Amino acid sequence: MQRVELANGDLSFSRCIQGYWRLTDWNMSAQDLVRFVEQGLELGITTTDHADVYGAFTEEALFGKALKLAPHLRDKLEIVSKGGIQFPCEQKPDVYLAHYNTSKDYLIQAAERSLQQLGIDTLDVWLIHRPDPLMDVDDVAEAFQRLKQAGKVRYFGVSNFSASQFSLLQSRLAFPLITNQLEISAVNTDSVFDGNLDYLTQNNIKPMAWSCLGGGKVFDDPQYAALRHKALEIGEQLNAKLDQILMAFVLRLPCEAMPIIGSGNIERVKQQAGAVDIHLDHQQWFSLLEAARGFPIP
Amino acid sequence: MQRVELANGDLSFSRCIQGYWRLTDWNMSAQDLVRFVEQGLELGITTTDHADVYGAFTEEALFGKALKLAPHLRDKLEIVSKGGIQFPCEQKPDVYLAHYNTSKDYLIQAAERSLQQLGIDTLDVWLIHRPDPLMDVDDVAEAFQRLKQAGKVRYFGVSNFSASQFSLLQSRLAFPLITNQLEISAVNTDSVFDGNLDYLTQNNIKPMAWSCLGGGKVFDDPQYAALRHKALEIGEQLNAKLDQILMAFVLRLPCEAMPIIGSGNIERVKQQAGAVDIHLDHQQWFSLLEAARGFPIP
Amino acid sequence: MQRVELANGDLSFSRCIQGYWRLTDWNMSAQDLVRFVEQGLELGITTTDHADVYGAFTEEALFGKALKLAPHLRDKLEIVSKGGIQFPCEQKPDVYLAHYNTSKDYLIQAAERSLQQLGIDTLDVWLIHRPDPLMDVDDVAEAFQRLKQAGKVRYFGVSNFSASQFSLLQSRLAFPLITNQLEISAVNTDSVFDGNLDYLTQNNIKPMAWSCLGGGKVFDDPQYAALRHKALEIGEQLNAKLDQILMAFVLRLPCEAMPIIGSGNIERVKQQAGAVDIHLDHQQWFSLLEAARGFPIP
Repeated sequence: MQRVELANGDLSFSRCIQGYWRLTDWNMSAQDLVRFVEQGLELGITTTDHADVYGAFTEEALFGKALKLAPHLRDKLEIVSKGGIQFPCEQKPDVYLAHYNTSKDYLIQAAERSLQQLGIDTLDVWLIHRPDPLMDVDDVAEAFQRLKQAGKVRYFGVSNFSASQFSLLQSRLAFPLITNQLEISAVNTDSVFDGNLDYLTQNNIKPMAWSCLGGGKVFDDPQYAALRHKALEIGEQLNAKLDQILMAFVLRLPCEAMPIIGSGNIERVKQQAGAVDIHLDHQQWFSLLEAARGFPIP
Repeated sequence: MQRVELANGDLSFSRCIQGYWRLTDWNMSAQDLVRFVEQGLELGITTTDHADVYGAFTEEALFGKALKLAPHLRDKLEIVSKGGIQFPCEQKPDVYLAHYNTSKDYLIQAAERSLQQLGIDTLDVWLIHRPDPLMDVDDVAEAFQRLKQAGKVRYFGVSNFSASQFSLLQSRLAFPLITNQLEISAVNTDSVFDGNLDYLTQNNIKPMAWSCLGGGKVFDDPQYAALRHKALEIGEQLNAKLDQILMAFVLRLPCEAMPIIGSGNIERVKQQAGAVDIHLDHQQWFSLLEAARGFPIP
Repeated sequence: MQRVELANGDLSFSRCIQGYWRLTDWNMSAQDLVRFVEQGLELGITTTDHADVYGAFTEEALFGKALKLAPHLRDKLEIVSKGGIQFPCEQKPDVYLAHYNTSKDYLIQAAERSLQQLGIDTLDVWLIHRPDPLMDVDDVAEAFQRLKQAGKVRYFGVSNFSASQFSLLQSRLAFPLITNQLEISAVNTDSVFDGNLDYLTQNNIKPMAWSCLGGGKVFDDPQYAALRHKALEIGEQLNAKLDQILMAFVLRLPCEAMPIIGSGNIERVKQQAGAVDIHLDHQQWFSLLEAARGFPIP
């Protein structure tokens, strides 16, 4: 498994990242999860993606139980988590409306809660989950500074930020944001064409990519029949599966995106991670783009 | 009343600004207007917003009559005006089509006309009213330079400019543009999400905000029923009126926008200016945003 | 004919540029073409625009035949060509789908092919024809570097790039991109309002403008009746033809765009080039804009 250098080489991620968005749906015991993490490590997948909100604010605690059972795993992983979203659920009795909160005190509490839930001392990377129209960047900068100085977070990044939002926050920080986690897939190429990936590439920031399979819609939604058929056709040429072709589409972008694999089935994880060895040539990639958008390039 | 520092602290505005867009509809005598200005000053509102085009190019002359009647007022005010729009009206017999003009000679004449109409020697701030697709930035820079050197304008800004338009004009000036006057309200949050406010905040530019009440549509238009109901509901919680909640929405933004109050009724002015003391919490603010946009945050 | 300085004055173009997009439709013998080029030179049109893809990859060879017949012409011309597009046609038997290719080896081959087809040693300017979502900017930078060092291309530019795409590529080059060839016309003012021309002007880059007449649609398409009537009305005032008014609209923009004339009829070329002497005043220009967009300025 390829590795991607971040933070001027002080940190590296595995090219494919294991996502735990749906961990709470996988019905894994702590022991099952330890095995799953170990099997991922055997594939070279060392980076894990979490967020406080996943599983209605319960995902990190589940992952924490596995780490407690197998503490040796911690140092083999780059653990990424996120904060800044609130929504009504059992864990948040005071919340009546989904909203963002990037105030200093809230962010510090959110990061500390993630550490506590995961049962670890330090997050390798912590992301602001969504751009907040009420974000006071000086406030965020102070929260980051405190978390860094306290040794609670090594590196910071953002998720779903536009270029101008990234630039604004970066302008108030003494250290570089190391990633922007974006939705990137054949189904959603917005960031390819709206300047966001141009900005990141110019600044040598490698994005993490979420929903690389298009949220599963490609597999059966009639709206994506053209893309599905084209991807299957190319899959036959390359002896690859549909999900591998969709992953390869993202991996082919020059921004060096790091796809997050969302499956909890180790065979599917292995299959999707295998996409790093699939090379789409120009015509294959552009035929997927054309099928996804429904119109040829100009 | 809070004050907002501009131009690296060389100038400050009252957080709320008195707008005179509709002065010519208020049926005030010069004496009435003097009293209105004085009552505004008692509320701490020292900044006044004008434009040559307001009242079909007659607003400034009306305001000038009040200043002539009470010359002591001049030094208690920051007087902002604007130029660059032309449209057919009695004062402009040669104009047959609404258009912009930012040529050097026109801008100098327009600023001088504003001075003459207002009966003052110096405008505190003068703005290009609209981004002009024919704007020759070197021409504008030369007009600004001349007006500044002649002591006719102290500081310059723009209105309704995008980030790239602001950046372009700024790049040719020897001094900083001090504001961008934008439409900002619960009804129009374009600048919150399109990068314009990000750009201004990154460059430490505080926007003036026009149409903060959404042009009055929120008060009765069925299209804005959801926003109106939500604002009234929050108003009950906070013991505040509808217009105060709408003002508080704008004041809560991290860009430190300076709302322009458009009313000529001093009680309504007082009420709206009172919004500076109303604090919307995260869920209140986001519930207004959701009601205004008709969809929850992602 | 005005000239426009590029590359900090190391290079200049004639304000109007002769385009050869449709050369293969003109049914000119090599001798006819020599005469056409000479007549253009008499008008002061020294800059010629080509691309490998024009005429399904056959245009450059036709132009090359004329240069072979009249070699003295080469040094009187600035020859611009482009590469990076592939599409299925007789000359490209291996291509089954229109796509872009900006890989290093492909770009070098494409530029060398253009030189060979044109029968010249050096292209004055070579452009990446379309922004390529798969563009690896370091790869492009290396291709440009090699072509420049080998004396095969003097200056580089791009076509149809957004501001962020231009900025990204420029950030990896040791020398400045000298132009961005964009579609600009009364019918398509996207770049006027989306920040692209702001960016170029701020960086002192002069655009080449393609399809200044709106692809001919203005002449008969009912959709453009309002624009056509307005342009004809202004034409009567200024004693100018429809195509001249449309050219004058583009020439009036402050970005100093260099229109590409697409006609192979020397009388029409002369007429359109004559637009450099037509000055639209503010109201004329804005009345064309309003007629083209169907709504007045705000």
